[in-house]
This record gives sequence, C-alpha cells and structure tokens, in this order.
Amino acid sequence: MPLVRISLRAGRSEADRRAIGDAVHQALVETMEVPPDDRFQIITEHGPDGLIFDPNYLGIARSDGLVMIQVALRSGRTVAMKQALYRRIAELLRDAVGLRPEDAFITLAENELADWSFGRGEAQYVRR
Amino acid sequence: MPLVRISLRAGRSEADRRAIGDAVHQALVETMEVPPDDRFQIITEHGPDGLIFDPNYLGIARSDGLVMIQVALRSGRTVAMKQALYRRIAELLRDAVGLRPEDAFITLAENELADWSFGRGEAQYVRR
Amino acid sequence: MPLVRISLRAGRSEADRRAIGDAVHQALVETMEVPPDDRFQIITEHGPDGLIFDPNYLGIARSDGLVMIQVALRSGRTVAMKQALYRRIAELLRDAVGLRPEDAFITLAENELADWSFGRGEAQYVRR
Repeated sequence: MPLVRISLRAGRSEADRRAIGDAVHQALVETMEVPPDDRFQIITEHGPDGLIFDPNYLGIARSDGLVMIQVALRSGRTVAMKQALYRRIAELLRDAVGLRPEDAFITLAENELADWSFGRGEAQYVRR
Repeated sequence: MPLVRISLRAGRSEADRRAIGDAVHQALVETMEVPPDDRFQIITEHGPDGLIFDPNYLGIARSDGLVMIQVALRSGRTVAMKQALYRRIAELLRDAVGLRPEDAFITLAENELADWSFGRGEAQYVRR
Repeated sequence: MPLVRISLRAGRSEADRRAIGDAVHQALVETMEVPPDDRFQIITEHGPDGLIFDPNYLGIARSDGLVMIQVALRSGRTVAMKQALYRRIAELLRDAVGLRPEDAFITLAENELADWSFGRGEAQYVRR
C-alpha cells in the first residue's frame, strides 16, 4: 500500500538507485507491518536547480547526496512505529549506498483504507 | 479541484498519454461530481528503474503497462463513490488505450476546501 | 517542514525557476510561520502534454505559464493564514518573474508533527 516517491540528485548509478528503493522498502516491511510484496515506488532524478534544500535546517548538515522520501500510506501507525521507520531507513540507506544519515529526508502522508485500488477497478482494502 | 498525478512507463505515444489523462478525468466527472472543466493533471514518464511495482501483490498480475494514479481532492466522497471511481477508471482506460484492468493503480489523498487556490491568490472554495 | 512540489512548463530559464522557488518559500515564511531555513522544494519541468489544465475553470483565464504548487505541511494553520499564503504567493510570483496571478495554482496537503524526519533517522518534531 505505501506509494513511495523518492527524489534524488541525478548522477547516481542505476544500481544505487535500485538499492535506495530496496532499502526504503525493507524499512517499511520491518517497522510498519507492510507486506514484502506490497511495493510501489516512483524514483525520480533532479538537477541541482530541481532539488532544493537548506543545508543546515535544525542543525543537520545536508549534502548534495540528499534523498527526499515521501510516503503515502493508510493511517493507523503509532508515533513509535514512525520513529522506528525513520531510524531504519537511515540505517539501511547507510548500509546500502553509504548514505550519510543527515541526508535522509522523510515525510509521510496518511489516508484511509478506501483510498486504495491495486488494480481491476476494485477497492481491495474495503470489506464487502 | 482534483490534482491528478499520473505516472507511467516511458514509451507510450503522446496520443495514448493524452487519452489516459482524458479517461481518468472522465471517470472523476462521472462518479465524483467533479465539474468537467475542473481538470488539473501532471503526467510523467519513467524508465523501468523509476517506476517500481510488485508484479503480483494481492494476486493481481501487473505488467509494464502499469499506470499509477494519485488523486488529491477535497474530503467528502463516500466509500461507494470511491469504489465507483476505481471501477470507472479501469473501464475507461481499457476502452481508451486497451489498458489491462490489473494495471490501473489508484490512490486518493483528501484535503479540505480551504486547501485550494485556483489562481489570483484567492481561496475560491472558502465562503466569504 | 513544508515539502513543496512546483510543476511548470519547460522553457523557463534556470534563473526564473530559482526565483519561482524563492518566491514560494518567501510567502510561506511571511504568512505561515515557516522558519526561513526550513526549505525543501522539488521543481519539475513538463512538456505541454505533461502539464494539463483547464484554461478557464471558475472563470480564471490560465496560460501556458501556469505554475502548479503542491505544499505538504503539518496541520494547524488557520483558513486566514492559508488565504494570506495564496495572496502572497501570487504577489511574489508576479514581482519575481512577472507571473500572471491567474497562473498560480496552489494546493495544500496537511499531515502531523510525527510525519517528518529531517535527517539522522529522527522525528525531530516529536517531543521526547
């Protein structure tokens, strides 16, 4: 169910981009009860003038390696689960491609079960 | 009012992309009480490594023809209206470009009337 | 905290795109209590078939100069603050790049404090 948009600076290898997507998904599976095969991601590359960020907001030193991650998912996860997700995304991105933890920017957007259709024109999460 | 983001694999003709946008909009008009001229869409193309999806989540066999549709709209539609929307998008995409119904992935994100400005710096849906 | 997606027709200069991002951020700072260094934006360019809009919905005459702005931010702003934001974005875009006020399309998507991580795998807005 999560639909994940990952936005990063152009220039990384295809293997790295794939590894970034894998890491974000793995963190969702480990911390948010997302099924392993519930994976839908859009990864886009941007030039320096397309991906704009403050290099020091909240005292966190960001680099051009910044990865912006926006996750749409149904509501219901606790604050503790969200905290675990952020921690695990940062860890797995560091392990996968050496991402600096300062460069993992994440935001969530919650909606409801009826707001998802996974194909065939059906709302699969709505009880019939 | 809906702002619709449609993400698909690069390689379709411009005519097909236009027809996909038309079909999604028509379904919104028919099922969600969207005015015919209330149309705002962003259609983006992605390489195989940019549009990632599980080919069988929930037992639905997806192909590279997958179209991901994310609709931002004000809250207030019933579950039945949402179900009608998904059904109609799948039907119209099949009729318009032969899309397999399994390849229509849809998610909604609701907000409020005050969250929209259609130009001139005004919040047109807020009663003055 | 706002994550701002700005979508516009390809063809503007890099300086203009930068000025558009600056103007939108400045309006958020002036009207929504956003800290000046709390800036995260994704600016994307689209062809005519990628950015689709009705040229007259609600009687507002839009041109190919249309700029679509989608702002994700935590909930809590009043309707009056949102109205001030729309007004100020339209003013500053006109001043910065001569944008027609009719061509400023804006929509907001609210979430909660726990829905943000600004790096290091932490949820910085959650009280510990």
